[in-house]
Amino acid sequence: ITGSAIMSDSKCVRLTGPLREQLLNSVDTVLFDCDGVLWKGNRVIPGAPEVINTLRRSGKRVLFVTNNPTKTRDMCLEKLTKMGFKASKEDIFGTAYCTALFLKNVAKVKGKVYLIGDKAVSEELKTEGITFTGPGPDPVHGGLNDWVKMPLDPDVKAVVVGFDEHFSFMKLAKAIAYLKDPECLFVATNPDNRLPLEGGKYLPDTGCFVQAVETAAQRKPHMIGKPSRFIFDCILSKHDLDPARTVMVGDRLDTDILLGFNCSLNTILTLTGLTSLEEAKSYQKSNCPSKRSMVPDYYVNSITDLLHHSLYN
Amino acid sequence: ITGSAIMSDSKCVRLTGPLREQLLNSVDTVLFDCDGVLWKGNRVIPGAPEVINTLRRSGKRVLFVTNNPTKTRDMCLEKLTKMGFKASKEDIFGTAYCTALFLKNVAKVKGKVYLIGDKAVSEELKTEGITFTGPGPDPVHGGLNDWVKMPLDPDVKAVVVGFDEHFSFMKLAKAIAYLKDPECLFVATNPDNRLPLEGGKYLPDTGCFVQAVETAAQRKPHMIGKPSRFIFDCILSKHDLDPARTVMVGDRLDTDILLGFNCSLNTILTLTGLTSLEEAKSYQKSNCPSKRSMVPDYYVNSITDLLHHSLYN
Repeated sequence: ITGSAIMSDSKCVRLTGPLREQLLNSVDTVLFDCDGVLWKGNRVIPGAPEVINTLRRSGKRVLFVTNNPTKTRDMCLEKLTKMGFKASKEDIFGTAYCTALFLKNVAKVKGKVYLIGDKAVSEELKTEGITFTGPGPDPVHGGLNDWVKMPLDPDVKAVVVGFDEHFSFMKLAKAIAYLKDPECLFVATNPDNRLPLEGGKYLPDTGCFVQAVETAAQRKPHMIGKPSRFIFDCILSKHDLDPARTVMVGDRLDTDILLGFNCSLNTILTLTGLTSLEEAKSYQKSNCPSKRSMVPDYYVNSITDLLHHSLYN
Repeated sequence: ITGSAIMSDSKCVRLTGPLREQLLNSVDTVLFDCDGVLWKGNRVIPGAPEVINTLRRSGKRVLFVTNNPTKTRDMCLEKLTKMGFKASKEDIFGTAYCTALFLKNVAKVKGKVYLIGDKAVSEELKTEGITFTGPGPDPVHGGLNDWVKMPLDPDVKAVVVGFDEHFSFMKLAKAIAYLKDPECLFVATNPDNRLPLEGGKYLPDTGCFVQAVETAAQRKPHMIGKPSRFIFDCILSKHDLDPARTVMVGDRLDTDILLGFNCSLNTILTLTGLTSLEEAKSYQKSNCPSKRSMVPDYYVNSITDLLHHSLYN
């Protein structure tokens, strides 16, 4: 009875056998998160390239959707290719690229961007013809009286916050000085709090810098990355696809799976990354609507489970 | 009818005439916030020193309670004295000092502190005999592979976050590496988001750094400053006072007035600082319990209204 009671809840089901065939037949497009799904750091998930390449051969459109703002599309393509994934630049949607698209096509920014970010966002902004100032070291100098008189660039019409290893008090102070003008746009590449590393270690991620600027500016940014639907709108602007015939595969509930929920996609959690099955199941049992919106439709131990087992024997 | 309806709500009442005499007779101790109350930056509020000195002469205990973590008690005393306020070191409770008291007397930290903070917190920690590492510039160097292998001090048993103009990615990364150990204590000096300056400008304040560390560490700190009652517990540990016969005077609803609410003190909002009467009244009309807890009992245009007008003619 317990078993059937659990199975009667139709979410967070292991994707295997006929269910897998049924799902794969019902979708045309498979969106893959990258880190924790295709690779972990610089180590490929065993069998992952064969999954991607087989899906493509069987006629599926495969796209890569990553919140990592420190890689351009070219950098992602290089990594995918080196690891044996068949891909082309048009298949890749990273937040550096999508931030540039947002500024150019949606916000239509007339002026310069003050950028708290690194080379990747800089490159993608350049490619889209958007001018900017900010990247690189900007260590604190002087004291209160100097900070008050800090020179500002009158052409700046937007502040973009991404991952910036040179984040500093001066950058934070400049960002809030620009954001004091309600007409100045506030954009964040992605909300990820921390980057998980091997051995249970973490590094600070973009979300820390975004929170610091939000706290000082008392404003909320336009968020580009997952779970914001803007990154999916970017995909829709470049590919003609049907959300009902699309599945999002990812390792994070609060970005990948929630994006799927927000955009009415099918969702698959893969357990090779950040999230354990226990965590997903605890969200499923929760009464909290925001947690329940992060429960995947299906889960797999690894994306190799997406293919018929015999392929690997 | 409208007028009497407003007056029937017994909070946020202008403190004047017999009401002022009644309140002052009912209290022994007056707690004053400093910036926005006694001075604005380096400019004294006209008449403020006379108010403090007259209250003292009439037998009141006057204490200074400030969230500013960039001043030691000695530095506060120097500023007070220079501006004409009669004060002694024992009357001053700043968050640099109270953080040191917390670590020593409450948390009883056995080991070193990793400090994101400046000279003032360093000085107060030294005075209380607490060892620490961290202050000063720590610019980013190397890349991901170096950050992963970042050397940590095994003696660190607490992370303290205050105002630090040298805040950097390395400091953030070290803080979360220490905080990965649930036994490592996490303490923040004060939650203030931004420092208001003349001309409607702002500078980033301690709260930005605290939020960045919270976001990366996924932990909440012990908060020392207002509105946390710890700063009031510090006062209680040094002075024998009765909350019911104490009044807190401040210019911020979310720190000064909320501290009063949290510690069952009488509260007076002064309008020389950050908060307008309209803002306080809008909190009073709100249905939100957290906003209503920030409504002051009384307000004055300036603390000079605390004394009988004739004193100033």
